[in-house]
Amino acid sequence: MLVNTRRLTIEWGDCDPAGIVFYPRYFAMFDASTGALFGRAFGGTKKQMLRHYDVVGFPMVDTRATFRVPCAFGDEVAIESTVTEFRRASFDVRHRLLRDDGTLAVEGFETRVWVGRHPDNPDGIKALPVPEDLIARFRDPPGTP
Amino acid sequence: MLVNTRRLTIEWGDCDPAGIVFYPRYFAMFDASTGALFGRAFGGTKKQMLRHYDVVGFPMVDTRATFRVPCAFGDEVAIESTVTEFRRASFDVRHRLLRDDGTLAVEGFETRVWVGRHPDNPDGIKALPVPEDLIARFRDPPGTP
Amino acid sequence: MLVNTRRLTIEWGDCDPAGIVFYPRYFAMFDASTGALFGRAFGGTKKQMLRHYDVVGFPMVDTRATFRVPCAFGDEVAIESTVTEFRRASFDVRHRLLRDDGTLAVEGFETRVWVGRHPDNPDGIKALPVPEDLIARFRDPPGTP
Amino acid sequence: MLVNTRRLTIEWGDCDPAGIVFYPRYFAMFDASTGALFGRAFGGTKKQMLRHYDVVGFPMVDTRATFRVPCAFGDEVAIESTVTEFRRASFDVRHRLLRDDGTLAVEGFETRVWVGRHPDNPDGIKALPVPEDLIARFRDPPGTP
Repeated sequence: MLVNTRRLTIEWGDCDPAGIVFYPRYFAMFDASTGALFGRAFGGTKKQMLRHYDVVGFPMVDTRATFRVPCAFGDEVAIESTVTEFRRASFDVRHRLLRDDGTLAVEGFETRVWVGRHPDNPDGIKALPVPEDLIARFRDPPGTP
Repeated sequence: MLVNTRRLTIEWGDCDPAGIVFYPRYFAMFDASTGALFGRAFGGTKKQMLRHYDVVGFPMVDTRATFRVPCAFGDEVAIESTVTEFRRASFDVRHRLLRDDGTLAVEGFETRVWVGRHPDNPDGIKALPVPEDLIARFRDPPGTP
Repeated sequence: MLVNTRRLTIEWGDCDPAGIVFYPRYFAMFDASTGALFGRAFGGTKKQMLRHYDVVGFPMVDTRATFRVPCAFGDEVAIESTVTEFRRASFDVRHRLLRDDGTLAVEGFETRVWVGRHPDNPDGIKALPVPEDLIARFRDPPGTP
Repeated sequence: MLVNTRRLTIEWGDCDPAGIVFYPRYFAMFDASTGALFGRAFGGTKKQMLRHYDVVGFPMVDTRATFRVPCAFGDEVAIESTVTEFRRASFDVRHRLLRDDGTLAVEGFETRVWVGRHPDNPDGIKALPVPEDLIARFRDPPGTP
């Protein structure tokens, strides 16, 4: 399964008075990582992918994070993201945030739904099947020999 | 001229490793204060006001803040907001953030434009005159004897 | 067990291009709600409580949220927060975020550790027993007949 | 004078219900850009630089931004940052945020003070002269022939 890795620097503004990352910031980092993972699978950006499939997005249904080791201002970290399961209209993502010595600092888990505009209600959304050809690209990523 | 006051507690997550408010957070506080000021003038919420006048909002054109005294986690502060000038399609707002001993901690200044949807381009916006009856309510606020 | 309720307005800046709350913001709201709950139990603010017990705080170990119904700009919501279990040096918190029609929109779950400064390392922290008298105040809140 | 350029992708969570960047986010981007600029001048990271000179940081005194063209989710932008003036204990920074077609979207201006710990009050800070050797590196950056 495709694993996408993003490298980030922990910024001053990500951290709280204890000098460590204010944990809601990890969820924002993970959200961008899921976007980057799907863009990578598609072979473009998340925005291009959403347009290509004419969908609204993949809103979060349930998310969890486990904090093992704190990260602080100036830390260089890597976030490894992968889909652990595709279901008909939903999927699970796992993120592993590693410090530059390889320590697993934070693990994140997400369940999201693939949604498009509702056919009968322009303001509404509707769960749709995750496209088969997109799922196939996670199993057999572009650029894989 | 109408002055609206909002009281807030500085939260842990508003503050940085120096233990004081991470200054971009002040701009988010001021943005909500401008919304509350216009809601108050209208006699409802900002959302109701936008709907009433069928406009998109009042995007920021230019903003500035001066930081005099830092605020820290747990501080109870008040933000006093007022429009300092209305022009045809734009206006200026001033915010004064006071600590509970009355010290002026931060001053904020904003220039915003009043915009609606563009008549010829559904994705575009267009500057519109600020409604006269709304301006009148800033001069003569509801509830004023 | 003590339940603390905070009322909030969903601000423009809390919301994403889909017009609904960007979910990491819920975690920031819940963090402030846990602080308010402990302040309420103590009979003051979170900051006063931390000083009274001479501790550093209650960092997050594990947190999860379930998103049932989206909230949008302008919504008035209530967050009901309570401790569901106290263990020796850790505890669990549950938050229920309700829309003003009473719909449960988001549920949040937290496991936190009670920590003080490490006796041998000024930069380190150490898990400590949650004070018995504080736990008692959750069972028998100030102001309860 | 040294100009440092950072490339960023505008994330979903940076944007508001109008689909464009929520402007307080620009200030957070600029704060990280000032940190990167000083790290680059020093020849390391901002954190290493603060440690080297044994200072607390460079808190903001006054900041302003002008918003010319909105940026939206998925935009690739570049932030060019430079010091426009060094004074004894303070300095001015200018940021230019450009879209990938070269359009100037946002300009930011900052006045910051160089501060260390107060010699007589461990919780206090004190303005200090900006180190001459650091200023020299802005004029004659490492890696310049």
